[in-house]
Amino acid sequence: MDANSIKIVKPTNVIIKNPLKLLSGKVLSEYKLKYETYGSLNSDKSNAVLICHALSGNHHVAGYYEGDDKPGWWNNMIGPGKPIDTDKLFIVCVNNLGGCHGSTGPTSINPITNKIYGSDFPMMTVSDWVESQKELMDVLKIPFWKFVVGGSLGGMQALQWSFQYPKLIHNCIAIAAAPKLTAQNIAFNEIARQAIMKDPNWHNGNYLEKGVMPNQGLSLARMLGHITYLSDESMREKFGRDLKNSKLGFNYDVEFQIESYLRYQGEKFVTGFDANTYLLMTKSLDYFDPVKDMSDNLIKNLCECKSNFLIVSFTSDWRFPPKRSKEIVKLLLDNKRNVSYSEISAEGGHDAFLMDNKDYFDVMASFIMESSNGI
Amino acid sequence: MDANSIKIVKPTNVIIKNPLKLLSGKVLSEYKLKYETYGSLNSDKSNAVLICHALSGNHHVAGYYEGDDKPGWWNNMIGPGKPIDTDKLFIVCVNNLGGCHGSTGPTSINPITNKIYGSDFPMMTVSDWVESQKELMDVLKIPFWKFVVGGSLGGMQALQWSFQYPKLIHNCIAIAAAPKLTAQNIAFNEIARQAIMKDPNWHNGNYLEKGVMPNQGLSLARMLGHITYLSDESMREKFGRDLKNSKLGFNYDVEFQIESYLRYQGEKFVTGFDANTYLLMTKSLDYFDPVKDMSDNLIKNLCECKSNFLIVSFTSDWRFPPKRSKEIVKLLLDNKRNVSYSEISAEGGHDAFLMDNKDYFDVMASFIMESSNGI
Repeated sequence: MDANSIKIVKPTNVIIKNPLKLLSGKVLSEYKLKYETYGSLNSDKSNAVLICHALSGNHHVAGYYEGDDKPGWWNNMIGPGKPIDTDKLFIVCVNNLGGCHGSTGPTSINPITNKIYGSDFPMMTVSDWVESQKELMDVLKIPFWKFVVGGSLGGMQALQWSFQYPKLIHNCIAIAAAPKLTAQNIAFNEIARQAIMKDPNWHNGNYLEKGVMPNQGLSLARMLGHITYLSDESMREKFGRDLKNSKLGFNYDVEFQIESYLRYQGEKFVTGFDANTYLLMTKSLDYFDPVKDMSDNLIKNLCECKSNFLIVSFTSDWRFPPKRSKEIVKLLLDNKRNVSYSEISAEGGHDAFLMDNKDYFDVMASFIMESSNGI
Repeated sequence: MDANSIKIVKPTNVIIKNPLKLLSGKVLSEYKLKYETYGSLNSDKSNAVLICHALSGNHHVAGYYEGDDKPGWWNNMIGPGKPIDTDKLFIVCVNNLGGCHGSTGPTSINPITNKIYGSDFPMMTVSDWVESQKELMDVLKIPFWKFVVGGSLGGMQALQWSFQYPKLIHNCIAIAAAPKLTAQNIAFNEIARQAIMKDPNWHNGNYLEKGVMPNQGLSLARMLGHITYLSDESMREKFGRDLKNSKLGFNYDVEFQIESYLRYQGEKFVTGFDANTYLLMTKSLDYFDPVKDMSDNLIKNLCECKSNFLIVSFTSDWRFPPKRSKEIVKLLLDNKRNVSYSEISAEGGHDAFLMDNKDYFDVMASFIMESSNGI
């Protein structure tokens, strides 16, 4: 266990009985949210931080579960003395609604039918997630978020907070994000979805009822995801054209190391993730387009938003490259918001937002420290 | 019908009875090659041009088949008065061995078993194709190629000619190619292969025997291919975030135009292509690495090669971007070859090599005209 890490952590469940009207028009009459918190809410409740997770993330952001030697997914960023400092801040992270790690989602029982939701689980949007996170905020009696922080799809949620609840967010950190997906981004998501939905075990999304899982499709989707998470350069460095065996086999078994890596990633992923959740997460990415959806309201809300913004991008990220982050910066500057922008030189591709990098961590620590005055 | 086009053309078959020893060690005792020719071989046999096709291409490069209103795949480049001028040059294009458009391939009958080859068809390499093209060259009594020309995988064959038969090629034109695939390139191919091989109709490659086709997998593979053929920019221009219907449906039907395009491309492709050929083509791409395979021989052969080289790349091609073409240029310059390089400003991505573009066509026409002196 990392000496500077938060130690053992436990998730908490809360049932929200306030019906949630979704952007699709559907309503969730009640739902469970699974979340974790680290650090303590201070007496004037001014140090709360919401961490928003990305496509395959969850509420287990930092620290260790009892008996588990793998920490949460952002343990390098969050902990005592780390950029998001648990000695000073009160951290909250919730498994997104529609997820598969404890919050109500497609694998849960639909209280109306008493059957597994499966494909009956409604489509989620970033805006719906913000609404459900607002419910949790009320449960925890948090008056405002000192910081809302996220990378990738998590960054989109952080941005959405500033548009949707402009008065409840003091600082917004959106890392490796974009103001909306491009046609190419949507194309990758669509192929991932088709891979899942063409799996013979798909059964229109009601595979759990049949006792099977569309794991081949989900595995393909994940393999494809990995291409977009890594940079061409980092793949070259990690694998190059190295062979698994000493010479070519002239067959369709694994021949190159990169093939071995991808197959392993695909196979590992399906043991802990639900295909319907994967589909729904890709759709929420595709749908995200606050400038279009909120139109005049977005501008009005942004003008009411006193939040500071930190937008971070990585040079080798080709999923959401720096130019996409600059679109966010432009939108905010055009509306006279207080924006810091940092383009980090990094070879890790989109996944760089999860990796150690001195410049990145310094930028995060310094923005958070400066914005934490009075805590 | 395009007024400047070659008119009606017909393919020809030839049976090669000279056994072909493949790089994999396997031997094809005899095989059929299907090819087309345009123009006439001149009296001193000095005007022959070999066109090498790419992954999904074939021997039908220009002109029209009787009753068909769609010309060959490079009809804009090849024809009377066009850059590859059929009034002056004698053009040959052959369906690659292992293909599915008439040359012996996985859909052919294996003369040894009297059954469809299916997965028994041996793996092909670029070097094997050059050998089979050399056999056709001998059949046609062509003493040397005035030009060998190809884009993408076709460009790799053109290069291989200069390494493998350095004295039989006078000019080599390699467009949108690379000296070898990167890990990312291989990764895309591997996912395409996995999509096909995980199709329930795959049957270890012997699907035709079962009367089925792994069309879902092949369609996915093709959809994925299309992402890498188009540039982010051209996708944005063509489709952007346009919706198919007036508003979001919040379901997994087609919502965005790009989804509709990809599904259509996938479905169209499977009606005319064989999955085993697709697999084999992706493998030949992965294997291509002449610098490694030929090592000292490559240098020796290159030094014997009097060919001029034209290397062409396109700014928006992210499958084989300009820097990959520059690797070819460097290899040739390091060996003191006569190289012209042109980086064409184009938005079409990798597919730009098939599209009209004045600069591109001017470069091709001028190189070909200058190198055709004496014809």
